[in-house]
Amino acid sequence: MTPSKSSKTPFTFLPSAFLGKKNFAQMKRAHLFVVGVYLLSSCRAEEGLNFPTYDGKDRVVSLTEKNFKQVLKKYDLLCLYYHEPLSSDKVVQKQFQLKEIVLELVAQVLEHKDIGFVMVDAKKEAKLAKKLGFVEEGSLYVLKGDRTIEFDGEFAADVLVEFLLDLIEDPVEIINSKLEVQAFERIEDHIKLIGFFKSEESEHYKAFEEAAEHFQPYIKFFATFDKGVAKKLSLKMNEVDFYEPFMEEPIAIPDKPYTEEELVEFVKEHQRPTLRRLRPEDMFETWEDDLNGIHIVAFAERSDPDGYEFLEILKQVARDNTDNPDLSIVWIDPDDFPLLVAYWEKTFKIDLFKPQIGVVNVTDADSVWMEIPDDDDLPTAEELEDWIEDVLSGKINTEDDDNDDEEDEDDDNDDDNSDEEDNDDSDDDDE
Amino acid sequence: MTPSKSSKTPFTFLPSAFLGKKNFAQMKRAHLFVVGVYLLSSCRAEEGLNFPTYDGKDRVVSLTEKNFKQVLKKYDLLCLYYHEPLSSDKVVQKQFQLKEIVLELVAQVLEHKDIGFVMVDAKKEAKLAKKLGFVEEGSLYVLKGDRTIEFDGEFAADVLVEFLLDLIEDPVEIINSKLEVQAFERIEDHIKLIGFFKSEESEHYKAFEEAAEHFQPYIKFFATFDKGVAKKLSLKMNEVDFYEPFMEEPIAIPDKPYTEEELVEFVKEHQRPTLRRLRPEDMFETWEDDLNGIHIVAFAERSDPDGYEFLEILKQVARDNTDNPDLSIVWIDPDDFPLLVAYWEKTFKIDLFKPQIGVVNVTDADSVWMEIPDDDDLPTAEELEDWIEDVLSGKINTEDDDNDDEEDEDDDNDDDNSDEEDNDDSDDDDE
Repeated sequence: MTPSKSSKTPFTFLPSAFLGKKNFAQMKRAHLFVVGVYLLSSCRAEEGLNFPTYDGKDRVVSLTEKNFKQVLKKYDLLCLYYHEPLSSDKVVQKQFQLKEIVLELVAQVLEHKDIGFVMVDAKKEAKLAKKLGFVEEGSLYVLKGDRTIEFDGEFAADVLVEFLLDLIEDPVEIINSKLEVQAFERIEDHIKLIGFFKSEESEHYKAFEEAAEHFQPYIKFFATFDKGVAKKLSLKMNEVDFYEPFMEEPIAIPDKPYTEEELVEFVKEHQRPTLRRLRPEDMFETWEDDLNGIHIVAFAERSDPDGYEFLEILKQVARDNTDNPDLSIVWIDPDDFPLLVAYWEKTFKIDLFKPQIGVVNVTDADSVWMEIPDDDDLPTAEELEDWIEDVLSGKINTEDDDNDDEEDEDDDNDDDNSDEEDNDDSDDDDE
Repeated sequence: MTPSKSSKTPFTFLPSAFLGKKNFAQMKRAHLFVVGVYLLSSCRAEEGLNFPTYDGKDRVVSLTEKNFKQVLKKYDLLCLYYHEPLSSDKVVQKQFQLKEIVLELVAQVLEHKDIGFVMVDAKKEAKLAKKLGFVEEGSLYVLKGDRTIEFDGEFAADVLVEFLLDLIEDPVEIINSKLEVQAFERIEDHIKLIGFFKSEESEHYKAFEEAAEHFQPYIKFFATFDKGVAKKLSLKMNEVDFYEPFMEEPIAIPDKPYTEEELVEFVKEHQRPTLRRLRPEDMFETWEDDLNGIHIVAFAERSDPDGYEFLEILKQVARDNTDNPDLSIVWIDPDDFPLLVAYWEKTFKIDLFKPQIGVVNVTDADSVWMEIPDDDDLPTAEELEDWIEDVLSGKINTEDDDNDDEEDEDDDNDDDNSDEEDNDDSDDDDE
């Protein structure tokens, strides 16, 4: 999580006037101004859609052992940016300042929501950080009661605001009516759990609620106290059902009633689904959860008929292979990441106007993609399963085509070139 | 569309060093740097999810009468920012620079997509602007072939990138299979049209395609050449069906086959639906399309059971009242606008964790909201219809409660206070 990639960024165009230490405060203000106007730029004569502009107040404070207790007491939620010590490296300095700006804007926007925003210096406050259990510098943590939640998504103001708003909602959503059951059933791309309990006072409901807090806001917990709703969902009293994303039937968690720990344990064990959607709010966590250094990645734009069709086929494959612990396909809807579309197209050498599925090596982003000659003739579920089988067995892998892409080199014993000289042709020859 | 609101923004915290004219170039570079890092800040050790960073190249050029033809010829799509002349007003200067930065980043991200980005100075290039038909300074236009498309959405890099990507796709999406029909049917929150034609060579299909280009990317046009698909959608040869958002049944456009002009005319006439979703890509256009200075606004988070339920009720109301030309409810899903949630809560004095419906005066954002005491007990469709009737008749309006909110003032004849002294109680007393 250290900003190791940053050294690649061309920062040389930054005027040196901005880099002096004495200009630090000025600079920060200038940046804050910039983000403010950036967000303001679409104001019109009508009222009602005014994007927030930074007002110049400092809301993000430095946390120390001295002010810790006082700060903690003041807020329902405390958002902590655990940063590496301020270095003389200008790139690191800038990155730090920029994160600070994002946090200032988020703090302003959420001002009336009782959320505190602080910085924790990894060196100066090493003792405090240790006490708080912080390990990875550059991480954003949220303290809520006695829980610590790590934010591992896109570090952008809108994503962060939504994350925090989700965190201050109740951890369990109550389902009361038939229409709400419909809403519940419509959610298919996240893990969800639902339990049936006697009432809010039930000790089993309380255990469920406590368990929910462990996963908020990433995994949604629902409950009902209504017999009609429970019947519609085939839930017995004190039973909790676990729904894997995109699966039609839930798993009833065995041995009801459960303790908080049993529920937490079960969710943790079943947390990696066969098909999962990449989401801005936890994209990095998902990406880090690779299997043997690779991800099977499928691009499909759900709002597009071809993309929808491909996603339906993927779901079919996932349902047929839900018991395979080695399979976890990452589905990416390009609509969720407009700024990454061109980057992906360049990096993976694919066209994202049509559905794609491939294997990506997460260390170097090397990849191979299934040949889909025509988006009117998408692969069937069977063809997809065969392809996936070849990926899992290593028959299709990201290294085999490396000689095709680059000029042939003589170092055949290189790790990246495990196959021999006669692989100049297409992948098909390997079969 | 002039940045008239901007004078309200507290810019005083900007260090004066940044404001001198000679620092203009430096400043621009600093800003570009800022946006770059801002987007970079979530890089990790894994590869595959790297957000773009601005590389420092200038890609946005100034358009003049001299270079116009040459630039136009060079690209499939030309994106023009028509700006007011550079003024000595610092606020206006900054806003201009920030828009330029957003455009630079978008231009970089889309570099391999054959899209040009230019600035048109309203004063210096008045003649050219007139020739291009540009009227509103501060607008963003896109030239595609002989069409001019105005972008009237959130001026943010991600929204703009998605808008442009949608514009370079084919204007008509072909539906080939049963699964794609499902995908088509699933789209309910935009206007959509679908036609059945003999083949891509059919002159009627060509007229349809030409008509589609008038509305791309805001309104989606679909077509099929497949009898099975046509039968499933009850489409006759050369017929085009128009689907209003959230309506179950389409309207068959009368008098087939149609010319391009007839299709365009029909869509324009039916363009304001009874229930419409506020979208980042055309939010300002929607907001400007008020009815008598007001909008009926409904907030409902679709991913939340209460919000889903409320939206279902709204749809019911819209279906029952689709023939009322005076009714057009704007549905806002707070999830689409995380940065505006707190602003709306403050401006409208409402809690957006639960569904809300109200009337907003677009001139001053004054508003009144239906009382929904409990989100477990949402209004029925009938109750909602009664409330809407009261809004349309003027019985419920944004002015009546103004004396409640502020201290009583003596100017009863003020426009804002049309009712007399005994309105200190709640709205209910008016009925």
